[in-house]
Amino acid sequence: MPSTSARQSVPTLAPAASLVFTTLLSHGPLTRSEVGRRTGLSPAAVTKAVRPLMELGYLVEGVDEGTRPGVGRPANPVRVDAGRALFIGIKVTGDEIIAVLADLCCRIRTTRNVPLSGREPEAVLPRVAALVRELLREAVGLGVRVRGLGIAISGDVDRADGVVRYSPFLEWRDVPLAQLAGTATGLPVTVDNDVRALTVAEHWFGAGVGLSDFALVTVGAGIGCGLVVHGEVVSGAHGVAGEIGHLSLDPHGPLCHCGNRGCVEAIAADPALLRAVRAATGRAVAGAAEALELARGGDPAVRAVYARAGAAIGKAIGSLVNLLGPERVIISGEGLAAYDLFAEGIRDAFATSAFGTAAECDVMTRALSFEDWARGAAATAIQSFMGSHTYEER
Amino acid sequence: MPSTSARQSVPTLAPAASLVFTTLLSHGPLTRSEVGRRTGLSPAAVTKAVRPLMELGYLVEGVDEGTRPGVGRPANPVRVDAGRALFIGIKVTGDEIIAVLADLCCRIRTTRNVPLSGREPEAVLPRVAALVRELLREAVGLGVRVRGLGIAISGDVDRADGVVRYSPFLEWRDVPLAQLAGTATGLPVTVDNDVRALTVAEHWFGAGVGLSDFALVTVGAGIGCGLVVHGEVVSGAHGVAGEIGHLSLDPHGPLCHCGNRGCVEAIAADPALLRAVRAATGRAVAGAAEALELARGGDPAVRAVYARAGAAIGKAIGSLVNLLGPERVIISGEGLAAYDLFAEGIRDAFATSAFGTAAECDVMTRALSFEDWARGAAATAIQSFMGSHTYEER
Ligand SMILES: [Zn+2]
Ligand SMILES: [Zn+2]
Repeated sequence: MPSTSARQSVPTLAPAASLVFTTLLSHGPLTRSEVGRRTGLSPAAVTKAVRPLMELGYLVEGVDEGTRPGVGRPANPVRVDAGRALFIGIKVTGDEIIAVLADLCCRIRTTRNVPLSGREPEAVLPRVAALVRELLREAVGLGVRVRGLGIAISGDVDRADGVVRYSPFLEWRDVPLAQLAGTATGLPVTVDNDVRALTVAEHWFGAGVGLSDFALVTVGAGIGCGLVVHGEVVSGAHGVAGEIGHLSLDPHGPLCHCGNRGCVEAIAADPALLRAVRAATGRAVAGAAEALELARGGDPAVRAVYARAGAAIGKAIGSLVNLLGPERVIISGEGLAAYDLFAEGIRDAFATSAFGTAAECDVMTRALSFEDWARGAAATAIQSFMGSHTYEER
Repeated sequence: MPSTSARQSVPTLAPAASLVFTTLLSHGPLTRSEVGRRTGLSPAAVTKAVRPLMELGYLVEGVDEGTRPGVGRPANPVRVDAGRALFIGIKVTGDEIIAVLADLCCRIRTTRNVPLSGREPEAVLPRVAALVRELLREAVGLGVRVRGLGIAISGDVDRADGVVRYSPFLEWRDVPLAQLAGTATGLPVTVDNDVRALTVAEHWFGAGVGLSDFALVTVGAGIGCGLVVHGEVVSGAHGVAGEIGHLSLDPHGPLCHCGNRGCVEAIAADPALLRAVRAATGRAVAGAAEALELARGGDPAVRAVYARAGAAIGKAIGSLVNLLGPERVIISGEGLAAYDLFAEGIRDAFATSAFGTAAECDVMTRALSFEDWARGAAATAIQSFMGSHTYEER
């Protein structure tokens, strides 16, 4: 059906070209007939999609940079020319900025990070601009142009408009970040929710490769969720999607910053865990590390806090799986550090809440660094860059 | 991305032909350039998709049966030839079978219904077969072949395998319904979950026309949900999806038949409402009609039961909207009869739970009869029929 979604204005490749490009990113080098088999496109459609991408130099023939095979033979494998363009990806956390310089295959060439002096846009933007300048100098050294900047921010982000509508951790409201960062850096800027950006990278290169339906659930300072349904990341018609953290599990549960009670985030995110551990022990536990230490030391009250958090996460995943039936749920985030304490609760609550064959969904964990999150931001910049070209097919 | 979903074996049209066919079903007659504008396909792709569909006679030129315009001119509007094929759609409820004879535009030509004498497959199948025979005779009278039979059943249905895995209302487990009904009727049979089938019809002809992302929530004997994401109905990698009825809202809530506590279905579905009204009044209330009468008569305890149910439905819709961000949520089902009693609870709970701009989602009600549900079953038969042809494009 024709889409009339408000998100339409996010640039996208012509369907066939997009499919061919991302298939080669994930699985490349492939011959045209392998591309056809993986995408379901006819040989004619593959040829038509490959041609302009080759003319623009984003795809080349040959297995790697060293080989020089005969040009244009259908049996020659095609691959993305990683060195043809560079992108910068930035993840802003509550206390630091992580930036990567990535090539067109989204491979990281350089990483930089700086602490934040303050969280207000006036403090963050100059640091972003300084990091970008450093990485642009690096790119000059490599002799390749940087074609785009992706910035990943937690919270409610409108990618189409480039606006951070609300980020609880940064305490930002309605910050036109794409415009501000574009002016400061001179680059085309893509701003997206950080979990959604990470989901793009997982889809292209991670545990979501080849899957048309999966979810990425991130556990840590907040509880986030990125969704891929029918092969595409879900953005929400009004820019909100994946808010699994505010699934309310108990009307008498702890108060959440969203105003409701018993949200997953109010039970299982870091600040909630810390509050619960303090209440359970009566001790002024300083942070996540100390709470973890008490739990691993065997304190039953503290272990119970983590078990409850695990049960909340497992129940939320069960609800998600009952609604969408993904092939896989990937659990990641800094919260994985406590996974041994969560695991049983997650497993049991998921098994109890999953409905019928939904329980067959593959629930797995995956460690991802902040560098991986920044790489997700670079992936969104690659998406925007490839989508900014027009193809005859469209 | 290439799909590796287990649902792959559900037949689908080549993407472009499917898009063109369903666009003409929903918006027809359209000129080729209007089709191109609505689908985003190039003129060449539209021509390529239209040609085989015209050769097979499913599409014709001209605004309606009366006109005879010049053939093959791109400016001539194209439409689905409604009379080219007939389909039978059947909805099985707990107490009756509703059958419709529908044309290729899924317009209902005839309706039949019979009560059920028993719910076991041995009682239901002969009645289905008898209804189908009646409608086949009707089709002979019209001089058009019946090309497929769609059957819509509530519960966990595996469309790809044609198996009803579990239907709580019919108390069926692992019934190979497509095979049994195929043997009994001689027709190609499509079996699908009833809410998913109704969602297909809403997408093609109802309140979901032109939307790429919407949800249909049905309230009545159970609480069901059909989802369209990125323009396609969500079936779930393992055949389970849309199980909003088992979203658990309260760990201390009433016990649900799924084994958990506080599910939406255990609070807001008809049997749960009846139990709660009996408990609140201490009276042996006989059925939904009597409960409704007490509420409308002003009994505050009974009104509170409906208000709680409305709040549960509103909270569930809020969770769904926070996860998926659909453009619209359509509330339907027999439960609409009590909508005046639910409305405030739904509205308030939705507003409280919807996150940020997710609250902008259009939540609406829509009265749909069991005939509409049977029409949904016919729509799935049309899907399967159109998907059983192969096109060069694929
Ligand atoms: Zn919350
Ligand atoms: Zn339940």
